[in-house]
Amino acid sequence: MATTKTLVKTRSRNGNATKPAPARPRATEGDDTEITALDLAVAKLTPAMEAYFKKCEEKLGFVPNVLKTYAFDMPKLEAFVAMYNDLMLAPSGLSKLEREMIAVAVSSVNRCYYCLVAHGAAVRQLSGDPPLGELMVMNFRAARLNKRERAMLDFAVKLTAEPWTVEEEDREKLRRAGFSNRDIWDIAAVAGFFNMSNRVATATDMRPNSVYHAMAR
Amino acid sequence: MATTKTLVKTRSRNGNATKPAPARPRATEGDDTEITALDLAVAKLTPAMEAYFKKCEEKLGFVPNVLKTYAFDMPKLEAFVAMYNDLMLAPSGLSKLEREMIAVAVSSVNRCYYCLVAHGAAVRQLSGDPPLGELMVMNFRAARLNKRERAMLDFAVKLTAEPWTVEEEDREKLRRAGFSNRDIWDIAAVAGFFNMSNRVATATDMRPNSVYHAMAR
Amino acid sequence: MATTKTLVKTRSRNGNATKPAPARPRATEGDDTEITALDLAVAKLTPAMEAYFKKCEEKLGFVPNVLKTYAFDMPKLEAFVAMYNDLMLAPSGLSKLEREMIAVAVSSVNRCYYCLVAHGAAVRQLSGDPPLGELMVMNFRAARLNKRERAMLDFAVKLTAEPWTVEEEDREKLRRAGFSNRDIWDIAAVAGFFNMSNRVATATDMRPNSVYHAMAR
Amino acid sequence: MATTKTLVKTRSRNGNATKPAPARPRATEGDDTEITALDLAVAKLTPAMEAYFKKCEEKLGFVPNVLKTYAFDMPKLEAFVAMYNDLMLAPSGLSKLEREMIAVAVSSVNRCYYCLVAHGAAVRQLSGDPPLGELMVMNFRAARLNKRERAMLDFAVKLTAEPWTVEEEDREKLRRAGFSNRDIWDIAAVAGFFNMSNRVATATDMRPNSVYHAMAR
Amino acid sequence: MATTKTLVKTRSRNGNATKPAPARPRATEGDDTEITALDLAVAKLTPAMEAYFKKCEEKLGFVPNVLKTYAFDMPKLEAFVAMYNDLMLAPSGLSKLEREMIAVAVSSVNRCYYCLVAHGAAVRQLSGDPPLGELMVMNFRAARLNKRERAMLDFAVKLTAEPWTVEEEDREKLRRAGFSNRDIWDIAAVAGFFNMSNRVATATDMRPNSVYHAMAR
Amino acid sequence: MATTKTLVKTRSRNGNATKPAPARPRATEGDDTEITALDLAVAKLTPAMEAYFKKCEEKLGFVPNVLKTYAFDMPKLEAFVAMYNDLMLAPSGLSKLEREMIAVAVSSVNRCYYCLVAHGAAVRQLSGDPPLGELMVMNFRAARLNKRERAMLDFAVKLTAEPWTVEEEDREKLRRAGFSNRDIWDIAAVAGFFNMSNRVATATDMRPNSVYHAMAR
Repeated sequence: MATTKTLVKTRSRNGNATKPAPARPRATEGDDTEITALDLAVAKLTPAMEAYFKKCEEKLGFVPNVLKTYAFDMPKLEAFVAMYNDLMLAPSGLSKLEREMIAVAVSSVNRCYYCLVAHGAAVRQLSGDPPLGELMVMNFRAARLNKRERAMLDFAVKLTAEPWTVEEEDREKLRRAGFSNRDIWDIAAVAGFFNMSNRVATATDMRPNSVYHAMAR
Repeated sequence: MATTKTLVKTRSRNGNATKPAPARPRATEGDDTEITALDLAVAKLTPAMEAYFKKCEEKLGFVPNVLKTYAFDMPKLEAFVAMYNDLMLAPSGLSKLEREMIAVAVSSVNRCYYCLVAHGAAVRQLSGDPPLGELMVMNFRAARLNKRERAMLDFAVKLTAEPWTVEEEDREKLRRAGFSNRDIWDIAAVAGFFNMSNRVATATDMRPNSVYHAMAR
Repeated sequence: MATTKTLVKTRSRNGNATKPAPARPRATEGDDTEITALDLAVAKLTPAMEAYFKKCEEKLGFVPNVLKTYAFDMPKLEAFVAMYNDLMLAPSGLSKLEREMIAVAVSSVNRCYYCLVAHGAAVRQLSGDPPLGELMVMNFRAARLNKRERAMLDFAVKLTAEPWTVEEEDREKLRRAGFSNRDIWDIAAVAGFFNMSNRVATATDMRPNSVYHAMAR
Repeated sequence: MATTKTLVKTRSRNGNATKPAPARPRATEGDDTEITALDLAVAKLTPAMEAYFKKCEEKLGFVPNVLKTYAFDMPKLEAFVAMYNDLMLAPSGLSKLEREMIAVAVSSVNRCYYCLVAHGAAVRQLSGDPPLGELMVMNFRAARLNKRERAMLDFAVKLTAEPWTVEEEDREKLRRAGFSNRDIWDIAAVAGFFNMSNRVATATDMRPNSVYHAMAR
Repeated sequence: MATTKTLVKTRSRNGNATKPAPARPRATEGDDTEITALDLAVAKLTPAMEAYFKKCEEKLGFVPNVLKTYAFDMPKLEAFVAMYNDLMLAPSGLSKLEREMIAVAVSSVNRCYYCLVAHGAAVRQLSGDPPLGELMVMNFRAARLNKRERAMLDFAVKLTAEPWTVEEEDREKLRRAGFSNRDIWDIAAVAGFFNMSNRVATATDMRPNSVYHAMAR
Repeated sequence: MATTKTLVKTRSRNGNATKPAPARPRATEGDDTEITALDLAVAKLTPAMEAYFKKCEEKLGFVPNVLKTYAFDMPKLEAFVAMYNDLMLAPSGLSKLEREMIAVAVSSVNRCYYCLVAHGAAVRQLSGDPPLGELMVMNFRAARLNKRERAMLDFAVKLTAEPWTVEEEDREKLRRAGFSNRDIWDIAAVAGFFNMSNRVATATDMRPNSVYHAMAR
């Protein structure tokens, strides 16, 4: 038994006896050009939205594809942006990182490619702890979290997977972990929002900007 | 075997041999006064929101509890109202009734008390077919629907229950039922929105105005 | 942002820009005439069953469709009626309302159109609290119940959804809520019965008498 | 690597290095004496039931524990026996073996100890093919069945696991396999009955007569 | 109501009014000759494997079909045998019976025909309590077990059904039941191994030697 | 509505109004030092294993933690290494990349932290397409795959999630995608192996070497 040989042999990817795999596309082929499966014509941006897109370019270096997707209709884009920015960026008892952690843990239950990529990057960036982003994608239960984070994610994930079972006892657990009633609202609202966005993104096969993949690694 | 006796005997509710049930609260006790479990202080309405609430009073006779719930924070209320009104009331390839049918079928998967009550009433009212509202709550598959409605609800319910499995084949089914790409967006957006609202409502134990229960029966 | 406009505008159901929905059948089309998908010829009623049907007409004003369905075979009809009447109407530690609440909560898990309609009406009628019927259909956890009712429904719903996990601990919870061993039998028997009826009704697409929909609202 | 050694060594059950397992009860301890967890007093048998129990003793050599269980109340016992005998033994387009196969496949989904033991024995006996009984318990899909049997069990198992999804298409599959509308009723009624019995048995921890275990092996 | 007649009448299997069932194959047709659906040519046994197969013949009277299945490739067969024998037969804090109980309880979750038959027989044989084997197949919760066995199977079954939820709390339950860390490894390793074997067996439609069915009854 | 402000503002992570999150551990705290929750003493390596570990150090730069974990017992380590190397590295109709894609897609269903990290890195490395690794973790259905890869992963994931439903039809789909019977074995064997490893890793809280996180990004 020659057990010593092969766990480490990764350089010559296909051994002699191994048939070469058929040609394959890049996994993200077209992600930056065909953003959704619906091909909706972009509308003329309102001045507010034009300014907002410009600001994205300046600060991020790109306009997130979700915004380009909603840009087929200005009222929809403006409503989405207003709600998103309020939830994720306005003052709250939850830090921005905590809100992004909820976003990714929820998106993990729903297995949403767009949101896992975009918000996984945000968790890596905001935390300065890149594996935290991976863990939110994979299984938040395996991450070393403090009690507050764990209670928050337990609630958000239960609310995502089996909303009909959430009751006062679940809110009490959050209160015992130090969350105020207003904080509970924010946890629910962020979890709810990504339950919406996950479904809009999956239903339309929305593709994340490929720049996210390497961000903050 | 005296089988003839009792299926019909409903008047004397508890027979002699039956112990009286213990006192019980009304199932909707407090629904109009304690709207959520979070007890968040209402903020001062912006002029726009004040006008909007007044309009609700005039047209509906009441302000829906969901609006009162969001009124602890004006940016949240305004963002919610903007998105809601765009989705449910703006021009669309989907009729208003169809959008409400999605709302209820989605809320049925998530078993959301608030949304089933409020939007079940809307389906009864918009359709002029009260049992249609019941069927959306109970099991949309048992309703006599046309093919378009059935395809629409099949998509919305699959997107709700197992979003990660929705793919091009599912969009193709909608197209074969006559829906345009823009219509597919609208189906996804409405289904997504109620996946959000269901969770915010359940997480906060939001209670519907009790007036909905008897509406359009 | 003209948020004030449209949440309340429900009268003109489809706005100008909205395509009219295609003609649609009533959701309950044929419910009173084509009672099942199986089209089994009705047999000659035995004298006992003839008397029983007459009594239904007198007391309820109609013969429940489930009875007409079983009437293709007298032994089956008689066995069903005997078991039904014993379970739902004979003396028991459970009130008739409690038994009907179990019926609806179980039927909600199984999403049985026939039973939710017929027994939802019974809960409305027996309780004098119409929203209680709705809540049993939607999500019993959202109703204001006393502890006894809650324990009873928790047991019945667990027994319906995951029967293999019910053990002594579950019976102990019922005992702690004040139920006797005989009461536990009755809870199990009623929950079991509707797990049967739900499946017979769904398998045959059994349709409830449409008169139930408006009853006791 | 001495791979040859041990797969076959089963005689000396615990090797030297293996700690002896702690004393354990027989898996079926008390099955013939404490038939349920509810301990309900047996009532006086009616003459019809007394004759029936005597007949069981003569033909089977014992009274099935389910009958003893129901014997705390004569109307319940009589209703159960009437329905059971009609469903499982009266003339039908389904053979008795087919009805027992449904019983076991349904009970396998619900993992009901009582019904799997008692009706697994019936399948072994009626088929003269003992492993068929095992396969109905384990996974009916692994058995070599004819198309009719497979269609019948597919329907019964779907109706058990996800009743809300059963629709005309499922009935059509049965018709294509040669079943009449009356046969569809019988499949549904037997599947429904065991969905009831499984739950009554599990809820009460009903124990099968231990004689079943060795029967028709 | 002639309830006395038929529960016991099993001898004349199909009554006059009952159509004979169509000819049916034995449920285990071909199990000893067409061992898998893949029809892979058996390779020449290495001397070690030849000796091992011979030993099986001597001790068991047959070579288990799983070994014949793996025999298309000697390195795979040797690796499987080495791992199997180490896990199931080497010294451990778990008795051989306990390891077989885990094997069957895990295989019951996955409904694996091969493993339930082969290892169900092993439980019957090692325990000298044949119904214990049946109970591991049907629902381990219904067996009379000691606390140690119950804790062990609860862990193995949770690890099988929802591995992502297993955490320190679950390991603590095992420790409280008297298991060491090394024992926990062994429980996990055996449960893991059968989660592998169940899938290889089902994926290839692997058939157990039919001799297992009657063994140790 | 000042929508232009904040989607892009990620630099100052917590705004003034936002409470700082409580101190939190790194998500991977201790991953390289406390490899499992079981704390089993490492045994003396056999010469073969010592050579193998040395080879890992030379080629990979580290010994994978899974190997260190198994090193408490040499027969277990050797059996694991033999099976792993045969499955993942020996000649096969599946390329090494394909085998790693199965590993990650299976581990995604089971949400196994260790395997997703270690084998996600392998997919990135072998494919030269880092986002492919991410997509296998998140939702393989969202990746741009060729038909062969898709059929292979559909089979592996179904076998993982609902093994009892895999039948000849599923094998036929693989054959139609060009896989031989031997290839089907290999797909099943790799999927099976990771269903084992996922459970051993999760049951013991096995932690991946932290070097994997940044590898081949």
